[in-house]
Amino acid sequence: MSTPLRVAMIGHAFMGKAHSHAWRTAPRFFDLPLRPELAVLVGRDAERTAAAAEQLGWAETATDWRAVLERHDVDLVDICTPGDTHAEIAIAALEAGKHVLCEKPLANSVAEAEAMTAAADRAAAHGVRAMVGFTYRRVPAIALARQLVAEGRIGQVRHVRAAYLQDWIADPEAPMSWRLEADKAGSGALGDIGAHVVDLTQHITGETVTGVSAALETFVKERPLPAAAGSLSGTAGEGTGTVTVDDAAVFLARFSGGGLATFEATRFALGRKNAIRLEINGSLGSLAFDFEDMNVLHFFDGADPAATAGFRRIVVTEPDHPYVAGWWPAGHGLGYEHAFTHQVVDLVGALAAGEQPTPSFADGLAVQHVLDAVQRSAADRSTWTPVVLDPRSS
Amino acid sequence: MSTPLRVAMIGHAFMGKAHSHAWRTAPRFFDLPLRPELAVLVGRDAERTAAAAEQLGWAETATDWRAVLERHDVDLVDICTPGDTHAEIAIAALEAGKHVLCEKPLANSVAEAEAMTAAADRAAAHGVRAMVGFTYRRVPAIALARQLVAEGRIGQVRHVRAAYLQDWIADPEAPMSWRLEADKAGSGALGDIGAHVVDLTQHITGETVTGVSAALETFVKERPLPAAAGSLSGTAGEGTGTVTVDDAAVFLARFSGGGLATFEATRFALGRKNAIRLEINGSLGSLAFDFEDMNVLHFFDGADPAATAGFRRIVVTEPDHPYVAGWWPAGHGLGYEHAFTHQVVDLVGALAAGEQPTPSFADGLAVQHVLDAVQRSAADRSTWTPVVLDPRSS
Amino acid sequence: MSTPLRVAMIGHAFMGKAHSHAWRTAPRFFDLPLRPELAVLVGRDAERTAAAAEQLGWAETATDWRAVLERHDVDLVDICTPGDTHAEIAIAALEAGKHVLCEKPLANSVAEAEAMTAAADRAAAHGVRAMVGFTYRRVPAIALARQLVAEGRIGQVRHVRAAYLQDWIADPEAPMSWRLEADKAGSGALGDIGAHVVDLTQHITGETVTGVSAALETFVKERPLPAAAGSLSGTAGEGTGTVTVDDAAVFLARFSGGGLATFEATRFALGRKNAIRLEINGSLGSLAFDFEDMNVLHFFDGADPAATAGFRRIVVTEPDHPYVAGWWPAGHGLGYEHAFTHQVVDLVGALAAGEQPTPSFADGLAVQHVLDAVQRSAADRSTWTPVVLDPRSS
Amino acid sequence: MSTPLRVAMIGHAFMGKAHSHAWRTAPRFFDLPLRPELAVLVGRDAERTAAAAEQLGWAETATDWRAVLERHDVDLVDICTPGDTHAEIAIAALEAGKHVLCEKPLANSVAEAEAMTAAADRAAAHGVRAMVGFTYRRVPAIALARQLVAEGRIGQVRHVRAAYLQDWIADPEAPMSWRLEADKAGSGALGDIGAHVVDLTQHITGETVTGVSAALETFVKERPLPAAAGSLSGTAGEGTGTVTVDDAAVFLARFSGGGLATFEATRFALGRKNAIRLEINGSLGSLAFDFEDMNVLHFFDGADPAATAGFRRIVVTEPDHPYVAGWWPAGHGLGYEHAFTHQVVDLVGALAAGEQPTPSFADGLAVQHVLDAVQRSAADRSTWTPVVLDPRSS
Repeated sequence: MSTPLRVAMIGHAFMGKAHSHAWRTAPRFFDLPLRPELAVLVGRDAERTAAAAEQLGWAETATDWRAVLERHDVDLVDICTPGDTHAEIAIAALEAGKHVLCEKPLANSVAEAEAMTAAADRAAAHGVRAMVGFTYRRVPAIALARQLVAEGRIGQVRHVRAAYLQDWIADPEAPMSWRLEADKAGSGALGDIGAHVVDLTQHITGETVTGVSAALETFVKERPLPAAAGSLSGTAGEGTGTVTVDDAAVFLARFSGGGLATFEATRFALGRKNAIRLEINGSLGSLAFDFEDMNVLHFFDGADPAATAGFRRIVVTEPDHPYVAGWWPAGHGLGYEHAFTHQVVDLVGALAAGEQPTPSFADGLAVQHVLDAVQRSAADRSTWTPVVLDPRSS
Repeated sequence: MSTPLRVAMIGHAFMGKAHSHAWRTAPRFFDLPLRPELAVLVGRDAERTAAAAEQLGWAETATDWRAVLERHDVDLVDICTPGDTHAEIAIAALEAGKHVLCEKPLANSVAEAEAMTAAADRAAAHGVRAMVGFTYRRVPAIALARQLVAEGRIGQVRHVRAAYLQDWIADPEAPMSWRLEADKAGSGALGDIGAHVVDLTQHITGETVTGVSAALETFVKERPLPAAAGSLSGTAGEGTGTVTVDDAAVFLARFSGGGLATFEATRFALGRKNAIRLEINGSLGSLAFDFEDMNVLHFFDGADPAATAGFRRIVVTEPDHPYVAGWWPAGHGLGYEHAFTHQVVDLVGALAAGEQPTPSFADGLAVQHVLDAVQRSAADRSTWTPVVLDPRSS
Repeated sequence: MSTPLRVAMIGHAFMGKAHSHAWRTAPRFFDLPLRPELAVLVGRDAERTAAAAEQLGWAETATDWRAVLERHDVDLVDICTPGDTHAEIAIAALEAGKHVLCEKPLANSVAEAEAMTAAADRAAAHGVRAMVGFTYRRVPAIALARQLVAEGRIGQVRHVRAAYLQDWIADPEAPMSWRLEADKAGSGALGDIGAHVVDLTQHITGETVTGVSAALETFVKERPLPAAAGSLSGTAGEGTGTVTVDDAAVFLARFSGGGLATFEATRFALGRKNAIRLEINGSLGSLAFDFEDMNVLHFFDGADPAATAGFRRIVVTEPDHPYVAGWWPAGHGLGYEHAFTHQVVDLVGALAAGEQPTPSFADGLAVQHVLDAVQRSAADRSTWTPVVLDPRSS
Repeated sequence: MSTPLRVAMIGHAFMGKAHSHAWRTAPRFFDLPLRPELAVLVGRDAERTAAAAEQLGWAETATDWRAVLERHDVDLVDICTPGDTHAEIAIAALEAGKHVLCEKPLANSVAEAEAMTAAADRAAAHGVRAMVGFTYRRVPAIALARQLVAEGRIGQVRHVRAAYLQDWIADPEAPMSWRLEADKAGSGALGDIGAHVVDLTQHITGETVTGVSAALETFVKERPLPAAAGSLSGTAGEGTGTVTVDDAAVFLARFSGGGLATFEATRFALGRKNAIRLEINGSLGSLAFDFEDMNVLHFFDGADPAATAGFRRIVVTEPDHPYVAGWWPAGHGLGYEHAFTHQVVDLVGALAAGEQPTPSFADGLAVQHVLDAVQRSAADRSTWTPVVLDPRSS
């Protein structure tokens, strides 16, 4: 682990905190072929960035991300800023010869995502790699689900039901935030959390969504302005602002193998905080997962005799399970942020091996195409809308 | 309980067995204002009907249902035949002055359901009553759910997610059956089980579905003919037959209060035998139910302090819960058929009181209108399709 | 089914209601070799007994059970009275040549249970049969559990943990009742509900409890007298009475195969209404059951590969499961009272075949020996106390 | 955070890895009044210790722990060695003026634990602090449970049922290990995992165990020697060794408030990997927890009206819950090792405030007294055995 991988991270909010933890932690539990260095933390405000760097463990700070791209002692740029800035930064970084890890969603529009994917393709020709952070792929139970599908254990996929349920703005008095403004956030529940379940179901099944029929809804159209800027859960101030994104998205979909799906993403499911629910029925077996019980995968094996068949509650904490051997003895559950550490492990492994890390920008673009079809269908009386398929996605 | 209610039941298969049990059992556990008599069992085959009457406890048998309608010693006709016969029998019975209990679905088409509802309206003017058998309404946990909504405990309905999942034809080698033929069954999973979750969500919320966007699918289009007629789970015989109904239906919907819904009905959810799943998120609380755990209702009360809020697992077996006091001491769960007994209790109570029992034929028609909109949307590229609203439904 | 089995039942409270339902219902769903007739209902109060007979479906009534034993038109005596009367009635009935079904507990003391077992042995020589009503044995999930153990699916039993949790007197203001008086009830939670889990664990494992170490507790020693006699959940009246039975019992135990067990029976487990919990770990597999979810058995198969091993949630509602085929199609859960119907089915089958029905009086005596050892250990500083083993128990 | 807290850690196996992670991570997520420094890692083998220090992030290494105690640049000694070495190291460290964090069990015998507690008392007079690592106390759901009890939400404790279930030696062919030898491990399942549930139930209830009745069992008395030393899960080598500790322990107990308890600790519960199960019934409410679903606490509030009462499934991931605000937004579950980080946070906070951190050595001694009583009872025919109460325990 003598060769360093010098990282510059842009942004230091929620995702910056999670990524920092992963960069720090991955080499402590896994044997990595490169040694990550938390080299430079980039933020707009020098003082706040310095405080964050101290807190999160970064060696240096900077406020001009373009200048950082010029540095020879930076190998990888980790983009943790809001979605409207991803395209500009990622393309510039790739053109500067830096590997890129970009938080999801890849971009706020298909056009931007396409430009980013094109840039990633060009960079790949020079051995420069780009990855998008659909981190939940690396929750062990999700990775096991994909593995079981790939091994043919559930057969042909007939049904997918996917939901991402939150409730943090169910209260109409919850104040405005940049996440509720279309120009900054692109979309609402759809792009923020719906993107995750689109990616996860495509990842687990190894199939793509080919068409959708959708409806979007904004239940609360005016909200109080926040008392103090930047605080999602802050107390209300004076005046109101207009919510310009969806509060909830529902859509039907078909997968490339012929399966039928229902999708839902909402911030109004009172009592559900972060419930990512996936259920897949195949011709030979079924799988079910809920992030509220993230160390468990339920698996029905149609080959079991009828009298003793039943969904198996697999506690995914055994050494035989994906990623688990790096951590603790059997039976010791992992938490939310471990998937970020696994992401670093896989990314570093791919870079050292000269391979394309996954999910690629093309995979992120594929999700964007689905979200775009959802928005077009919703705007066109839910009419069935084919998803543009990109030949580059895996 | 001296006044008798003399019942003639037509049909003696699965539903006939369940109804017979309910007619026999209701007066043993509940104080009924009328005394049900299992007077006449009607079937096409005299010998098999006689055997069934012996088994199920009916005093007499008949093979000509029209003749039975003429009898003065029959007060109520209980229709347990397949859906394609409902309209003819129910209308004739009502016109003959007999109360009618008709199994769901009310009919195989909107036109028939409308004619039946008109007949029910005419009969009601003479004190003759008609009821449709959406029995699951009377599962105690469901009745409690409706009660909590009516009391305002969940506030305004924002989300409904409803699914009815079975797997009895997931195997492509499962043989043909009348339930897979459109001319007999009307539709497949949609009408057979989807109808239930449409009715249940309308019943619990007290709202109506106003529009839908839908997709239907027949995964297995040719199936082996059964070795012996009439057996759903029979072994295969020679040759194949064509499945002319849907194997699965998925649809988006809006409720009259503005809530957004996803619906699913399928016979291909491997590992799920009879999973009726309902989840409703309101502005003040949420509810969740799964028929696989039918004595439990989950209730989230948004008024609970955040640190101790959580879905309450209410075991609906207390004397304070709907219908429960008639049965056993606290903590003794009920089963599937108890709801049929509750149906008899409520029906007999309404008849004695001279009131309209619910669900009425108009309620059955309302469900039919939703199913019809689903089929039209599915045939029209999932385009959003308003549901025809009937002013008579409650 | 032409040969009748003419039943006289003594007692018509909770258990009388459950037994009546079973006698009425069994022949409607199962093919029985004898035709049960609800011939005579016996109670102390003529008027109340007549009302009960009308409600429950009995042809005749009587107030003198001894006179009923003289009748030639009675084949079986079903004893649903409190435990302190069991011995006298059962022995007299057997001596009169009547088959006996006796509710549990078999008796309030070992001496009585031994006398009853001796009487049963003498009667058996003449083809007269006796059975004790440990009904929970016939819950399908329990029957499946026993079957899996018998097939060797869990190997050698290492651990048993059994609890029967109720909360109906957790409130110190809940009034007195005969169930809280030692001279009528024999013991408290121990004999009332602890007896069930002793029987169930012996039944499922096919082993016997060989020794125990126990503690008993009466948390609330004085309670208000009831306002009106006979009402368990009644409002309090004037004055207080002394509770002379245990509120809760806990004990360690060893099974004959060397396994180690913990047992608990309590009426003070706030929030648990009727939670019968059984968990058994063997050398090859494990089983878990909770009556709050009575249609489900959890089974861990140690032979599954580690990566996909997990407790299987078997929904015990398939035709392949014990007793289920008599009822409904797959996926339709049963309730509490179905086990009483299964008890009638098995009893009638055994009588017609001339075989000993199970559980026999000897099995009831075996449970009594365990309870007796528990009481002796509790009275002797929890010292390990061997259970007297009776050679007659199966 | 300018004042450093210079830590020397002795031992670098499973616990050393967990403690290192906590020392590294605590200041990244929580504002600490002292700045932990991973100063010196101490191990017996210089080479392996150096490799571990590199992996785990320690600045220096040493092989002579006594020499390390002499250093002026060490403030705290963190003892992660097997239990038979705790007393010697901890007493020496306290006498050298170093704060001590000692892994559980405090010691392998009461005598050692008493000596350690006495040393801790002497050190406390000089502001030198000692803490024992019953880490599970700081799982947020456990901390919430204690808080609810302290607030009187469950009233008087009537029942405790506690079990710690593992299965890693259920296979008789699993090889020998130091954990199965009495001279090294002190006891088996009892001291290793039973100690945790004793501490947790005392901690949550705020009461002490006053007496026990116990049984111990060693199911597999001879095991193959391991192929290679040191590997718990290693493959078998030649020859066999004798297991001199318990495989499982069961005991009854009473708490100081009069409540009745059952305890179980086993390594033979096939299918359960690390199931720490706690259930407490009080006069006003109940609590239930299972470490297999560690982010959830179940709470029954007896004050809820009967019709809507039920165990609340509290997902303990909200900012209002103990420790959670330091981590992620609502709904993002934590894992096993987070409790170690919380332990560092609380320990550092107490040191900076000049207060006694908890659990103290006296608390560890109190657990030891319970385990000792368990062993004495088991050796004396399960006779009820009072626990020696130490006036120093909190």
